[in-house]
Amino acid sequence: MANLVRLSLNQATTQYWGMRETILGCAEAGIGWIGAWRHKIEEIGLAETVSLLRSHDVRVSSLCRGGFFPAPTLAQRQQRLDDNRRAIDDAATLGTNVLVLVCGPAPDKDIEAARRMVEDGIAALLPYAQERTVRLAIEPLHPMFAGDRSVVVTLRQANDMVERLHSEWVGTAVDAYHVWWDPHLDTELARARGTILGFHVSDWLVPPPDHLLGRGYMGDGVIDLPRLRSCVEAAAYSGPIEVEIFNKQVWDTPGAQVLQTVKQRFVDFV
Amino acid sequence: MANLVRLSLNQATTQYWGMRETILGCAEAGIGWIGAWRHKIEEIGLAETVSLLRSHDVRVSSLCRGGFFPAPTLAQRQQRLDDNRRAIDDAATLGTNVLVLVCGPAPDKDIEAARRMVEDGIAALLPYAQERTVRLAIEPLHPMFAGDRSVVVTLRQANDMVERLHSEWVGTAVDAYHVWWDPHLDTELARARGTILGFHVSDWLVPPPDHLLGRGYMGDGVIDLPRLRSCVEAAAYSGPIEVEIFNKQVWDTPGAQVLQTVKQRFVDFV
Repeated sequence: MANLVRLSLNQATTQYWGMRETILGCAEAGIGWIGAWRHKIEEIGLAETVSLLRSHDVRVSSLCRGGFFPAPTLAQRQQRLDDNRRAIDDAATLGTNVLVLVCGPAPDKDIEAARRMVEDGIAALLPYAQERTVRLAIEPLHPMFAGDRSVVVTLRQANDMVERLHSEWVGTAVDAYHVWWDPHLDTELARARGTILGFHVSDWLVPPPDHLLGRGYMGDGVIDLPRLRSCVEAAAYSGPIEVEIFNKQVWDTPGAQVLQTVKQRFVDFV
Repeated sequence: MANLVRLSLNQATTQYWGMRETILGCAEAGIGWIGAWRHKIEEIGLAETVSLLRSHDVRVSSLCRGGFFPAPTLAQRQQRLDDNRRAIDDAATLGTNVLVLVCGPAPDKDIEAARRMVEDGIAALLPYAQERTVRLAIEPLHPMFAGDRSVVVTLRQANDMVERLHSEWVGTAVDAYHVWWDPHLDTELARARGTILGFHVSDWLVPPPDHLLGRGYMGDGVIDLPRLRSCVEAAAYSGPIEVEIFNKQVWDTPGAQVLQTVKQRFVDFV
């Protein structure tokens, strides 16, 4: 199972596990990476998390999540930036050089203004990201989240931002579930060459049992994951591949069993 | 309420009304247009539908729906084309020159192949569409329907097809709910100048109560409809505007009451 070297378990897949269970579970299953979430870290603290990671030889592929830049007032937007700087600090302390950005929704009906707030927010963070040597990964979310989670919804849009921001400290995170439908995906993956900072996999079930908590295990849906992976790798991404499955049924399954399925599906379908 | 002249009630908004109730309800409410669905026509037959439309002076803005082109075998794809030709016939008999196309999902994981099947299917229909003087309106659906309803998911993609098909008998239908999130919407609406064959409105609620049956009345969500309408009109569309609200709560409300709300919201928010 040499293929498993790049497998990372994003903590969204085992939502009911705390940080300690995740790290021990991955060590036990031979999974060398986790995609960590801030609310999981808060439960036991950063120092304890770092200690557990070290003693179990598990590394953090990325920290989820910074972002949520748009807000009605300047003061609120500054608060969001402060929170993002804390996230950058946490990423550095965890030993990952990737902070995933979920960019946030618009505070009103002006989605274009919100998109400018996102870009301005990232620009404002870049000096601090460079200082802490943490890269900011803009994750385009599926357009069905445009109203409540992210005004950045296509890889083209994220690539446009990366191009304009023109810094080695910003790039993109490509999540199969969010981008698989895009008619211009191949072109934009090629364009993203050298700037892809993360790759997340799961599957799109048909029909979707639930749009928020209905992602499938790789192989259970309609996404051509091997094809997508080959495009991502052709764009020079060779880092960890996070399995991120928001699914109530998966959450209700014992974590160790989920990890066995994740490993098998990763080998067979990614 | 001069503004109401362009209002059309898409039958999806009053799902529990039959064709007779829809036509009588619209006539009573002073709504001069309906967006008709084939399964509603089938309940009473085409002749009876035409007779009711004439006697109540209600016109059909478009027929929903043709499409569903991709299928695993050539024989199946031919069957789909035959069904589309019947839909073209029905549209002509109803006196509308617009057949809305919901293009269909892929039969397997090859979404690009399915997209080619869609374009080939439309190309094959064009001679018959011209013969019956019915235009085919490619409706890009929201990407959350890419797995089960339509592999055509952006206006750019629909515009690309229209450009390649190069016929006055094919264009696009722009539905606010399906396209509002698109970062390239303004550009593509401008590009669609003269080829927009339909404009549908509703609203995107935050958070979405349900992704399939959770559309909102205009004004209840986050879509900047007046701005979208002005772009659509700048692209030379001046035809009926269909209100199409898939929403269980709206369906459970008495139809006459729904029509009053639709009229008011149309005047206030579109």
